[in-house]
Amino acid sequence: MQNKFRVMTVLFEGFELLDVFGPLEMFGTLGERFDIKLVSQQGTPVKSSQGPVSVMDFSFSNAAEADILLIPGGFGTKTEVHNDDLLAWLKDKSQNCQYVASVCNGAVLLARAGLLDNKRATTNKLDFKWVMTHGPQVDWVREARWVEDGNYFTSSGVSAGMDMSLALIGRLCGESVADDVAIRAEYSREKDAGNDPFAKIHGLV
Amino acid sequence: MQNKFRVMTVLFEGFELLDVFGPLEMFGTLGERFDIKLVSQQGTPVKSSQGPVSVMDFSFSNAAEADILLIPGGFGTKTEVHNDDLLAWLKDKSQNCQYVASVCNGAVLLARAGLLDNKRATTNKLDFKWVMTHGPQVDWVREARWVEDGNYFTSSGVSAGMDMSLALIGRLCGESVADDVAIRAEYSREKDAGNDPFAKIHGLV
Repeated sequence: MQNKFRVMTVLFEGFELLDVFGPLEMFGTLGERFDIKLVSQQGTPVKSSQGPVSVMDFSFSNAAEADILLIPGGFGTKTEVHNDDLLAWLKDKSQNCQYVASVCNGAVLLARAGLLDNKRATTNKLDFKWVMTHGPQVDWVREARWVEDGNYFTSSGVSAGMDMSLALIGRLCGESVADDVAIRAEYSREKDAGNDPFAKIHGLV
Repeated sequence: MQNKFRVMTVLFEGFELLDVFGPLEMFGTLGERFDIKLVSQQGTPVKSSQGPVSVMDFSFSNAAEADILLIPGGFGTKTEVHNDDLLAWLKDKSQNCQYVASVCNGAVLLARAGLLDNKRATTNKLDFKWVMTHGPQVDWVREARWVEDGNYFTSSGVSAGMDMSLALIGRLCGESVADDVAIRAEYSREKDAGNDPFAKIHGLV
């Protein structure tokens, strides 16, 4: 039996801070169950959209295997959606993962790689229409905190990644474990994937 | 007139990811109003409690001036509360800041440095009693999402740092700007500093 679930997060210039570190706070609180690694194309430090720079564990060419592949969003996706090397790497790596999860407009990278075709998925409100253009075969859900379809989890904007990650922790470790993680972080988690007040606020429904 | 508020975040080994990057997501979304920098004692990359490593902008000896000093928590505080160099640096730097803000058990460092004496303050639930022992002259508030006293903002555990930061943004830029930041991040912000369901959940009240 495998000891830990290996969570591999894909970073690129202009990633959104909370898309990455909200989920990793939740997984990382359970250090005995989840092993967290960061990967980027070159393996060199990567600057976020907000400024802070993160050190990578791997480059695309030497990345270890993963059980959960986590793809954040951020302004950087506007460039990365045209990065064929990244899209090919995602397509290849996702085949051997137990779960693939995106936060915010990170879904555009999965969509562009064709990985969400004929699946239900969501993304952030501000980029919803732009993301849709890159996934015409995807069944986009406008009103959702997150969407689960098969082994793909996609969350709506930024902070929704925390709720999606807690749902994934619940799936893997049990709901009471996910509740405990949220309570430790004094985080009022949203447990209903369909409860999304921001769809209306942003005028999507 | 100064162009941007300079937000200086103090990192140490074993900092809590969301304590840092939740607030910096909020400040960083307003890149035209806030300039984000990270500092540690040595200035070399710093490993979080959850694993990911961050690159620093400054060491204690060459740090730029700051308008807002942000002190996160994490397991690392158990060591840093005995780090006289860090406590002295905090004491010195905080004198010239417009605001000093702590997240989670980061309050223990401010308390130990004597900076919260005779002030109202809060900290995270799990470490509440331990933190109190390091600040016997502090008026500790058990039930609070965050506490403001003079130019000191202290938040309760982990995720509360985001609400505190939005409150501080509201103070500096106006409530509608803070609301916009939260809506962009699809984050349901808590605007009532006294609304803290976790005090009861953790048995503190």
